[in-house]
Amino acid sequence: MSKPGAYTRADVVDTALRLLDQYGLADLSMRRLAAELEVQPSALYWHVPNKQTLLALVSDQIIGRAAPVDDLGDWKATTLAGATAIRNALMAFRDGAEVVSSTLALGLGADGALARIRGGIDQYCPDAEIARVSAESILFLVLGQVWHEQQRMQADSLGVVAPAVEANPEDAQAASRVLQEQIDSFEFGVGLILAGLETRMAAVR
Amino acid sequence: MSKPGAYTRADVVDTALRLLDQYGLADLSMRRLAAELEVQPSALYWHVPNKQTLLALVSDQIIGRAAPVDDLGDWKATTLAGATAIRNALMAFRDGAEVVSSTLALGLGADGALARIRGGIDQYCPDAEIARVSAESILFLVLGQVWHEQQRMQADSLGVVAPAVEANPEDAQAASRVLQEQIDSFEFGVGLILAGLETRMAAVR
Repeated sequence: MSKPGAYTRADVVDTALRLLDQYGLADLSMRRLAAELEVQPSALYWHVPNKQTLLALVSDQIIGRAAPVDDLGDWKATTLAGATAIRNALMAFRDGAEVVSSTLALGLGADGALARIRGGIDQYCPDAEIARVSAESILFLVLGQVWHEQQRMQADSLGVVAPAVEANPEDAQAASRVLQEQIDSFEFGVGLILAGLETRMAAVR
Repeated sequence: MSKPGAYTRADVVDTALRLLDQYGLADLSMRRLAAELEVQPSALYWHVPNKQTLLALVSDQIIGRAAPVDDLGDWKATTLAGATAIRNALMAFRDGAEVVSSTLALGLGADGALARIRGGIDQYCPDAEIARVSAESILFLVLGQVWHEQQRMQADSLGVVAPAVEANPEDAQAASRVLQEQIDSFEFGVGLILAGLETRMAAVR
């Protein structure tokens, strides 16, 4: 991969995703990416015009890797499964929530995240505006919670978390319990939004 | 304010809050703060041991400035008012969501945010665990949404937002409409969580 032109845009994005996971968003620079691909930064810009575009492509990859969700026959179960797939995709890469949130804010991509959550809601809710705002609420909840967890993980790795909340990394059972509590809280929160939507739709019918 | 010792910890935090709003979190360094206070960085560390602690103090200031909320006689209205006060407090300072979220993740403060949201919920929900997880869901929704809006605002100011979503700053009416839509979406989302909690509590009674 030492010659310019010996790699594709997909190679660039795959390498960026690997560097993101290894070093975090703050240290994912076009310069580092070029060095990793063993090309001049100028050669990189031939594939990706700027860092925003690179992050949008990385973001689409993160969302694209979310597990496919079948129609579970119940709109609430299908929506929760879609939201869980997005949550897991964000959790799979360091700073995943930040990459996807910034891409969404810039209007550059990651639309698959909302579409995945809307799939189940659209089966139930005929009002497109209510469906959209409900799905966005779930997406903001997912982003806010995963962001929190990823900040915590990074702080843990730097050893700057206050003792009272720090998990003992030696204690696998405690770590597993924390993870289960996060999943339970997430499912509980999404469940409240879906039950609330049901109440709201029942009121207008 | 040129002599070391001529300022208090409160002065340090107020100045940090002003620099945050002016330059953003990425450019709020201990070095810049010391320069602004016209002291050596070493003098600054006498007041604040490290940047995490500084951000925790700034975070507590942001939350502390949230408008007080009266008991509105209806637990859902009181909770929404509390959540709105937190939202407005985060929106009042550049990168407010990021400062508060990172402080929460590190377990260093900003507990007032959750307490403010729990006030109304605790009036209604006797189960402390359900009340806590419900309030956390609302807080993650608030953080996720404000984070999104603040990333958008920053991107707007840098001119890197995709044309389809960019607001025309000349068009005050359009900007006001976008703001109103954000508030409506926020209130709708919180409303769904509260209606969902009501359904859930009714089911166990």
